[in-house]
Amino acid sequence: MTQQKNKKQKTFRPKARIPRGFRDRLGTEIVAEREMLARISAVYEAWGFDPLETPAFEYTDALGKFLPDVDRPNQGVFSLQDDDEQWMSLRYDLTAPLARYVAENYDALPKPFRRYQVGPVWRNEKPGPGRFRQFTQCDADTVGAPAPYADAEICALFGEVIEAAGISTDDFFIRVSNRKIVDGLFEKIGLEGDESLETRLTVMRSMDKFDKFGAKGVALLLGPGRKDESGDFTDGAGLDDAKIETVLSFLQSGPENTTDDPLAVIAKLLGDTKSGVSGLEELNGIKSSIPDFDARGIIFDCSVIRGLDYYTGPVFEAEFKSTLTDAKGRPVQMGSIGGGGRYDGLVKRFKGMEVPAVGVSVGVSRLLAALELKKTGEAATHGPVVVLALEKNQMAEYQKMAAELRTAGIRAEVYLGGSNFAKQLKYADKRAAPIAIIQGEDERNNGEITIKDLVKGAELSKQIEDNKEWREEQPAQFSVKRSELVVSVKKVLAQSQD
Amino acid sequence: MTQQKNKKQKTFRPKARIPRGFRDRLGTEIVAEREMLARISAVYEAWGFDPLETPAFEYTDALGKFLPDVDRPNQGVFSLQDDDEQWMSLRYDLTAPLARYVAENYDALPKPFRRYQVGPVWRNEKPGPGRFRQFTQCDADTVGAPAPYADAEICALFGEVIEAAGISTDDFFIRVSNRKIVDGLFEKIGLEGDESLETRLTVMRSMDKFDKFGAKGVALLLGPGRKDESGDFTDGAGLDDAKIETVLSFLQSGPENTTDDPLAVIAKLLGDTKSGVSGLEELNGIKSSIPDFDARGIIFDCSVIRGLDYYTGPVFEAEFKSTLTDAKGRPVQMGSIGGGGRYDGLVKRFKGMEVPAVGVSVGVSRLLAALELKKTGEAATHGPVVVLALEKNQMAEYQKMAAELRTAGIRAEVYLGGSNFAKQLKYADKRAAPIAIIQGEDERNNGEITIKDLVKGAELSKQIEDNKEWREEQPAQFSVKRSELVVSVKKVLAQSQD
Repeated sequence: MTQQKNKKQKTFRPKARIPRGFRDRLGTEIVAEREMLARISAVYEAWGFDPLETPAFEYTDALGKFLPDVDRPNQGVFSLQDDDEQWMSLRYDLTAPLARYVAENYDALPKPFRRYQVGPVWRNEKPGPGRFRQFTQCDADTVGAPAPYADAEICALFGEVIEAAGISTDDFFIRVSNRKIVDGLFEKIGLEGDESLETRLTVMRSMDKFDKFGAKGVALLLGPGRKDESGDFTDGAGLDDAKIETVLSFLQSGPENTTDDPLAVIAKLLGDTKSGVSGLEELNGIKSSIPDFDARGIIFDCSVIRGLDYYTGPVFEAEFKSTLTDAKGRPVQMGSIGGGGRYDGLVKRFKGMEVPAVGVSVGVSRLLAALELKKTGEAATHGPVVVLALEKNQMAEYQKMAAELRTAGIRAEVYLGGSNFAKQLKYADKRAAPIAIIQGEDERNNGEITIKDLVKGAELSKQIEDNKEWREEQPAQFSVKRSELVVSVKKVLAQSQD
Repeated sequence: MTQQKNKKQKTFRPKARIPRGFRDRLGTEIVAEREMLARISAVYEAWGFDPLETPAFEYTDALGKFLPDVDRPNQGVFSLQDDDEQWMSLRYDLTAPLARYVAENYDALPKPFRRYQVGPVWRNEKPGPGRFRQFTQCDADTVGAPAPYADAEICALFGEVIEAAGISTDDFFIRVSNRKIVDGLFEKIGLEGDESLETRLTVMRSMDKFDKFGAKGVALLLGPGRKDESGDFTDGAGLDDAKIETVLSFLQSGPENTTDDPLAVIAKLLGDTKSGVSGLEELNGIKSSIPDFDARGIIFDCSVIRGLDYYTGPVFEAEFKSTLTDAKGRPVQMGSIGGGGRYDGLVKRFKGMEVPAVGVSVGVSRLLAALELKKTGEAATHGPVVVLALEKNQMAEYQKMAAELRTAGIRAEVYLGGSNFAKQLKYADKRAAPIAIIQGEDERNNGEITIKDLVKGAELSKQIEDNKEWREEQPAQFSVKRSELVVSVKKVLAQSQD
């Protein structure tokens, strides 16, 4: 290495920037998430779910993320090769690590095995607004118990968890369906075989457009095909009229479209199919094994077909009702609060045998956003009380003041920068401090401190226009004996919370 | 792809195994860590430190982990290339992300800026017994405040944090030194220049052997060199006798070797060196700005030279006293509980200017191990109460029993596996359940439940040898009215905690 090159490297300055698609979080947002997750975890634990922590990495083959024909990992996960050439990937959810954990420790675990897990997952995807490549998941799963009892329990648990997070039962409902009911529909219209796979997919795509195109549009998509306003033509699934009618009845079986008992509607429609009967049995089993079923906001709605690929039995999804409003009282569409279902193939990849499993994943960021909305109108949260440090040789005394406040349960800190008074006050503002404690030489000689009410000060400064008057009167500060520090601060804090 | 190949891939079974050097954790260990970190976080927040969360990834150049001559990342970190060819690495500590965060958001942050961060870090190192490639760190740092006030605060905070974790002030101390004092020693013996770098390193290596070889052995290493028992010769640093004497006096300046005030000893030894004076000033500044300094277990000991490379000013490390004992009453050497110091070069790599910073990193796993030791003799923690499910059509009623117990603050779950009674009891055992609740058809018809005290049952089964007698008497179970479920369970739990 030449001397010159060495010198050049010494002055290389990397740009300080966070990697693309990731984010930093500071302060209240972290605290809010932590407290919400603590409340949720407490519910999981009360129900007998034990916390599990798996590492960020799994072997890529254990995640099933190798494409069939290549020896590099699939898209969607962050992967790297270990020293011993084995590919490892960062987990993209908490279910795949659970499968690996259960398969690895199968004999030692109590069965059924209930666990919950909270932690970050990583997606190697194109980031977008509000879509990050690292986010928190919070799952509970029961492994080794067949439908419907464990499914019923997870549904009821899910409702309590959303309540524990801070959402009233009036503000959400849990929609329950069953993969098998949809299988029953395909049986009914003669599309259950392997040879009908492609038609099935076309039908499912068409069904998914019900909200958008209505019965008439979907009928075209299920039958001869549909031409849109621009003249583009979408090929249809080619079903006959009777079958189209069956699918449309199915799509209108949900509580939005009928006041009849949804399960009775489905029984009438699919009661002569094997899968339909089996699915209905599981849903009735869920209903009969949840105490106070009707008070929990759980509803059956088989018209929802989203996310069914992954699941093998009951599925459920929680949604906010439109009663949530923003700061201006307008209703906010928040969408799903998470969901889950039964996936009996979980451990099969590893052990060859089917192990029944059902789980739920809570929508952490959606819940936090909803809590944030609900906070509207509440008092803003304050930062710590700031003790100014005007005489550096009095630092131990300033620290003592802060310590006294903390002992009284009040967040407090000492200013540790330079001596400039204005800068210290500016710092207190930036920290959103409710109060600044001031003791200069004069005050110290008198055994006093000055308490500056920054909340009141900010309000008054809006009213008083004359700067001179403001400076002379100092209306939002007062002096007290040093010994009255804690009691005086408490008084001011109590006032500013009124 | 041929049909055959497709079939073969379908039956490929990955081995379920955790990646090398990582670990899973289940249950109580996670709860203990979470609760400890919550107590620590509460202290940080009370002192005005805000929680920060940065992503797992940083750009590799921001971490400074590129070797000068190669374009691949250095060893020690897990790295991969993003879609846009940029190298990213998983963070190996929480300080490097802090540096990036502060540099990226410098103008917006209040200064001084206090933050704490808790989270996993990753080391791409050879794993060993008890050495994992992912572990939890818990740091607090103050950026933008020069020595000694922020250093004093971090030292005092560190002590409170260890106490909050659950270690009494009698059981640990915090050793404080200063990098500048060691610089003063080198100044004193004429080794301060760039040209003496190699000799300095030899001297430091020799000093580090003081515990092992004592004064005589270190004197040889500092002077002509040392031959060990096997005849191997280690070259010496070639210092003359006066200089060796100075170094030995320095090494014996700690509280283990003298009852004199350690700072007075150092002042006598290095009071005529520039760095020594500056270092002493900072240490005296620390002492005078901590209220009740002597009651906090903080001691000055400049003879410690470990970890000084990284730091630029005061350094400190907390250690357990040897008063910790294991289950058999034997003293346990637990070593460091974490430490920290001043590193004013933190942000310089990014911004070119020096930003003063001081921080502490808490030894999470050491503290947890110490708490685990302290628990010896306490009652074992129990699992949830298990409600057996003998009649599957009564599932809602079993869930209701569990719900009643949870409402009373008692962890409870319903058995969700098969109907076999013996298996259900075995499950309760495996869950370490203190109590099983049993309601079969007879009990149900009588409006009763049977409460089986599994703790008492386990004790009695050790005493009773006659299996028949045991089965007939069932001494650890009794029947009560269904309405007395909660009150009876509470009674049994209270007894088993005596």
